[in-house]
Amino acid sequence: MILQKFQEITVQKNDLLVRHNETIQYQYYVVKGCLRTYFIDESGKEHTIQFAIEDWWISDYIAYFGNRKTVFNIECIKEALLLRIKKDDLEEIYNKVPQIERFFRKKIEKAFVRQELRILGNLTQTAKERYLLFLETYPLIEKNIKNYHIASYLGITTESLSRIRKEIAVN
Amino acid sequence: MILQKFQEITVQKNDLLVRHNETIQYQYYVVKGCLRTYFIDESGKEHTIQFAIEDWWISDYIAYFGNRKTVFNIECIKEALLLRIKKDDLEEIYNKVPQIERFFRKKIEKAFVRQELRILGNLTQTAKERYLLFLETYPLIEKNIKNYHIASYLGITTESLSRIRKEIAVN
Repeated sequence: MILQKFQEITVQKNDLLVRHNETIQYQYYVVKGCLRTYFIDESGKEHTIQFAIEDWWISDYIAYFGNRKTVFNIECIKEALLLRIKKDDLEEIYNKVPQIERFFRKKIEKAFVRQELRILGNLTQTAKERYLLFLETYPLIEKNIKNYHIASYLGITTESLSRIRKEIAVN
Repeated sequence: MILQKFQEITVQKNDLLVRHNETIQYQYYVVKGCLRTYFIDESGKEHTIQFAIEDWWISDYIAYFGNRKTVFNIECIKEALLLRIKKDDLEEIYNKVPQIERFFRKKIEKAFVRQELRILGNLTQTAKERYLLFLETYPLIEKNIKNYHIASYLGITTESLSRIRKEIAVN
């Protein structure tokens, strides 16, 4: 019953899974591949908010939970196999299988903690500490991701990222 | 059954409800009063993470959900009446009353959206825009809160806050 509600989709590198300012009805489980959530500000600058790799979930949750238009773009940066589920179908499953609702409650609690730690990190950590946390959060991800995406996630320039990597390599 | 698990407590102005680096087993519902969650960085600087007013919930959720030591302090800034519930008791209620688990799932989903918007705001908004969002998030809160707490929440100096207020008053 649950599996029937999931649809398998593949997304090619550079394709947009989610576009800014649209409605959204899905969240996505990453079976394999890599995606990037980003935001384009008024000056046209991209801000990378999140990456998603194998066994992560991804969506524009501001739109999905908040019932509003999407604010982010989600781009595929390594060909991906995803399982998507419609919000209405998931709510239906919650009504029939409380264990699934519990699973998703715990999932969002963990995501909330990760976000609080990120807010805290932005307030208090050096760029080097944030880079080390990034490596811990996304192990083995680095080879798929362009340097300017990592730098954008960390809120630093690519030059600063290079300097940090050199520092770490030396120590 | 549910109400029995809640305990009423009062907290005096300037008292710490939660202290950094301890264990925590409660979350708190604010019946009335005002509290402030803050973090002290290595240099001793305070960073205000959240305020809680009437009808808000508050805890150190990194510790509560993540089963680790608290990272924040929570200080009472206006005498508060709170209802607290123990994590274990809440889990017990979830097992008996799925509607309560749903209520808390939706609550954390909303909190997650609010956090994403805050992360986005820090990346892309001017201090003035962040201040306007603060006023929208915490209507009627301002008179209880010291200027340096608001400035610390916004990540700006009290001088910048005064300048923003004057700008808004003029327009």
